[in-house]
Amino acid sequence: MNETTPLLDRVKSPRDLKRLSREQLPQLSQEVRDEIVRVCSQGGLHLASSLGATDVIVALHYVLNSPRDRILFDVGHQAYAHKILTGRREQMPTIKKEGGLSGFTKVSESEHDAITVGHASTSLANALGMAMARDALGQDYHVAAVIGDGSLTGGMALAALNTIGDMNRKMLIVLNDNEMSISENVGAINKFMRGLQVQKWFQEGEGAGKKAVETISKPLANFMSRAKNSTRHFFDPASVNPFAAMGVRYVGPVDGHNVEELVWLIERLVDLDGPTILHVVTRKGKGLPYAEADPIYWHGPAKFDPDTGEFKPSSAYSWSAAFGDAVTELARQDPRTFVITPAMREGSGLVEYSRQHPNRYLDVGIAEEVAVTTAAGMALQGLRPIVAIYSSFLQRAYDQVLHDVAIEHLNVTFAIDRAGIVGADGATHNGVFDLSFLRSIPGLHIGLPKDAAELRGMLKWAQEHAGPYAIRYPRGNTEKVPDGTWPAIEWGRWERLKEGDDVVILAGGKALEYAQKAAWNLPNVGVVNARFVKPLDESLLREVAEKARAIITVEDNTVVGGFGSAVLEALNRMNLDVPVRVLGIPDEFQDHATVESVHARSGIDAAAIRTALAELGVDVPVGI
Amino acid sequence: MNETTPLLDRVKSPRDLKRLSREQLPQLSQEVRDEIVRVCSQGGLHLASSLGATDVIVALHYVLNSPRDRILFDVGHQAYAHKILTGRREQMPTIKKEGGLSGFTKVSESEHDAITVGHASTSLANALGMAMARDALGQDYHVAAVIGDGSLTGGMALAALNTIGDMNRKMLIVLNDNEMSISENVGAINKFMRGLQVQKWFQEGEGAGKKAVETISKPLANFMSRAKNSTRHFFDPASVNPFAAMGVRYVGPVDGHNVEELVWLIERLVDLDGPTILHVVTRKGKGLPYAEADPIYWHGPAKFDPDTGEFKPSSAYSWSAAFGDAVTELARQDPRTFVITPAMREGSGLVEYSRQHPNRYLDVGIAEEVAVTTAAGMALQGLRPIVAIYSSFLQRAYDQVLHDVAIEHLNVTFAIDRAGIVGADGATHNGVFDLSFLRSIPGLHIGLPKDAAELRGMLKWAQEHAGPYAIRYPRGNTEKVPDGTWPAIEWGRWERLKEGDDVVILAGGKALEYAQKAAWNLPNVGVVNARFVKPLDESLLREVAEKARAIITVEDNTVVGGFGSAVLEALNRMNLDVPVRVLGIPDEFQDHATVESVHARSGIDAAAIRTALAELGVDVPVGI
Repeated sequence: MNETTPLLDRVKSPRDLKRLSREQLPQLSQEVRDEIVRVCSQGGLHLASSLGATDVIVALHYVLNSPRDRILFDVGHQAYAHKILTGRREQMPTIKKEGGLSGFTKVSESEHDAITVGHASTSLANALGMAMARDALGQDYHVAAVIGDGSLTGGMALAALNTIGDMNRKMLIVLNDNEMSISENVGAINKFMRGLQVQKWFQEGEGAGKKAVETISKPLANFMSRAKNSTRHFFDPASVNPFAAMGVRYVGPVDGHNVEELVWLIERLVDLDGPTILHVVTRKGKGLPYAEADPIYWHGPAKFDPDTGEFKPSSAYSWSAAFGDAVTELARQDPRTFVITPAMREGSGLVEYSRQHPNRYLDVGIAEEVAVTTAAGMALQGLRPIVAIYSSFLQRAYDQVLHDVAIEHLNVTFAIDRAGIVGADGATHNGVFDLSFLRSIPGLHIGLPKDAAELRGMLKWAQEHAGPYAIRYPRGNTEKVPDGTWPAIEWGRWERLKEGDDVVILAGGKALEYAQKAAWNLPNVGVVNARFVKPLDESLLREVAEKARAIITVEDNTVVGGFGSAVLEALNRMNLDVPVRVLGIPDEFQDHATVESVHARSGIDAAAIRTALAELGVDVPVGI
Repeated sequence: MNETTPLLDRVKSPRDLKRLSREQLPQLSQEVRDEIVRVCSQGGLHLASSLGATDVIVALHYVLNSPRDRILFDVGHQAYAHKILTGRREQMPTIKKEGGLSGFTKVSESEHDAITVGHASTSLANALGMAMARDALGQDYHVAAVIGDGSLTGGMALAALNTIGDMNRKMLIVLNDNEMSISENVGAINKFMRGLQVQKWFQEGEGAGKKAVETISKPLANFMSRAKNSTRHFFDPASVNPFAAMGVRYVGPVDGHNVEELVWLIERLVDLDGPTILHVVTRKGKGLPYAEADPIYWHGPAKFDPDTGEFKPSSAYSWSAAFGDAVTELARQDPRTFVITPAMREGSGLVEYSRQHPNRYLDVGIAEEVAVTTAAGMALQGLRPIVAIYSSFLQRAYDQVLHDVAIEHLNVTFAIDRAGIVGADGATHNGVFDLSFLRSIPGLHIGLPKDAAELRGMLKWAQEHAGPYAIRYPRGNTEKVPDGTWPAIEWGRWERLKEGDDVVILAGGKALEYAQKAAWNLPNVGVVNARFVKPLDESLLREVAEKARAIITVEDNTVVGGFGSAVLEALNRMNLDVPVRVLGIPDEFQDHATVESVHARSGIDAAAIRTALAELGVDVPVGI
């Protein structure tokens, strides 16, 4: 790998970039990629997708004038080159670290970041809004959105495209087709795009499109004549492909790593009236042989040697792995088990499950709503589907949980991974709202296992009892338990872990670890494993409230409407009057930092709990 | 209109239907339509869409064997014929009334109702789940979904279609294309389908599709030969239309009112492997000249004369009209105002607005996520967008409110109509969760105007101050106020409406009416217009809590995590110890009935508040 970056050293802003000649752009791209690899070798960053998008980003910034022109990145994790080219190169080593750059684009971080993002499939609606705002205010600038093939098949992207075709505003959509989202891509649109790449045709619409075809001459003439011969549909916009059918001019597919050709094309396409899709084909991990060979792993690899790609695999046992092991075993015992993921096979620990139970596994792509409602259909017909989903992505299917599953009290289990603070991915990915938004849904049961054994016990309970169940567990690790571990847990019963009647701490899941650590040497402080947030264990809560001088609730969830509120509601309903201290994530979005750091500043870690205890008059020795 | 129904009188179940000859089916359809018109003349029912779908429903039940075969109706409001044919004819006059039939399909109402529904675009994911459950369990039955063209363009329907094309399970999708959803249809897919109807071609995929073409002979031979001549794409499934491009066999468009031809086609299509779309063209209001002429009005008309279509228009002034009047005026004053609706122009009171401000009006179709995120894009570029949306539909965009709007504290206003209990539409449409799910979103302001003037004041405030605002108001009527009414309201300040320090009632919006009615002649009972749920008026709350013997909170929202919880949280945070009675909608889904009836059984109406006051020791005279 090249250690020197003579061209990149001259680019402190998009303006500097424009001083380079076109012929220098391929080298600049390579220097940017080298820089990305160096940054990413520290581990935990979005390497492969950022390498794949670099040439497109160089070309866009070469032609457009950011920040006046708006460049939107769907999901935003592929935008490292954009950060490097917009004055943030020196801060790149701080990426995803506390006080450092976000791992995604973020409006408050740079005037060049057009949207704050992290969830997929939003860029097209955002871009439509921007184009309409521009036109409504009589302004004149370009709007360009870069969206991956995986994000495009999310429902809201498709629905936005439908409206974009209808509204016919000037905008450029770069479809960055790297042939896979985080997992292998799924879905029929994907198959269709694969078909396109084989056909290699080029298609243009009518009106402005025809004009474009006339002006686009040299580099594409060849390509176009090949295209003309390989398809009969050249000038038939209504029936050629789904994009053209939606009323969006379609150009492509073209090589997304030929930066000079990209510049030439974008220069011509941005000035066309109406919306245009430029379909570029890229390779995740571009330029890094080991990353190109296994882009799923290299999507967000651990620390590695930038030259050789050697890395030390983690030996820890994640909550995701615990879930995957549990359902793999469960599905052997119960033919009704069926696991659904929205494009998170690897992240949710389902690789082995999908191998062992291919006929009871479904990846719906980035379409959380579809995941939940497909599960509803399965439950109506006798299966016991489990939707494996990250907490912050379940936000996208709130209505489907409520309307399609809960109203009929269907037998669907939600295995909610990454619940609570996730750390480095920051505000967009923190799963600190699920207790609040799920708790208000009638009949939905909510459990927070303290360890892998409880997770298995809860999953088993959910498979054997009627109604919808939500089981939430955090990012991070737990202890592995032997196969066949299926502890009998009665849903709704809490567990006293430490006796003590003066002050009692109620906490579940990750927060329970902190509670135990805080209370271990405090004789009169009790700790209850409040592992069910719905229903609460009102009988144990009454016992505690009638004896204790005060209660502390701790949760890895917002304090608004969460577990603490549930306890306040229950005590109020039962007419029990005991002081309660509610510890949880404050009512603010939490920026990226380590999980431990966010927990500390939120006041839910062991030290904070001890402070709360001391404020309640408990004699707390210094240190833990 | 025909008063006798000799054929329908013989049909008590789908089994009876099969005893009729095919030639009798057109007459049966007409009898069913006559019956629907009679039932709907009582007012408030889904007339036009039900008339349009009748022939399709007759044909499906004639061919399929419900309940073994599953027939799903998207949204479910077009399924009156299905209810009539599945043993519920005599109960039809009870539809949408307390204890009577639901206005939608409902699993707990009949074994023939495959899904419980009310929101759009869910049927395809449900159907996919059912087909996969069937295959996973080694069973053999048919799955057929009927989806309208408006519902199809919802994001989750398009995303589900993408997965359906990929999974290739045997299922039939009847695309009921009546050329308009509730409002006029919008979007590019719609334009495409209009194009199809002009082309009148018929297309089949490969494999099983080809076989189908061979066996489908007589009635379609003509049609197909015309189709063959009119298009070059006959056997080119990958590139012909968006459906085929997604891997779903496409058949159509055919006449959705030729019931014999529909039977013939469905008989052949249901046995094909893989998914098939049958595109049928229908007319909303079919058979009723006045309804065909104005299907938007006749979508859900008021009481009318079934023979003449004469009806008495309502003279009441709805909250929706109050909103529409306010924004129409606001947009004249402020060039940044832009109103977005997800397919609810009429329902949200926006007809006049859309006429006066066509360039600052956007209907995105049934795609709530797109509505919200498009607004985010507009706000990022200097507009002050207002998303007009029903409370229960905003549930579908929870993540977009949180992720795309709230994280950057964007200037987007949510005008939330139909908040609280909506009555006749029942559990799927009640807007009783918004206070809970919105309250946990950091930085989102929430207001509940007590009347049209406060609604205008809040809208004006939101247009002039930074950040996201949610303003919720109920279904029903309010008093009209003159143009130019823009009361200065300080966001976050409650209003004492009635002095009284013994017990104080805190309530906002609809619940405030009840509170005032309950307290009017009780000298020591105070009433506070708690018109802001976020932020609470903590200063007034403290004043009240320090003096009052008890507080009652009343809300037209679930008691879980709602306004009462917000008050409990605040009192707890402020260390104020006062008994609180939380009145609100219980933690159960509320079936359809009148709004008043649900409020009474939920314990939030004036009588219930007086009961609560009496229980708290207030001397309450008998009667109100």
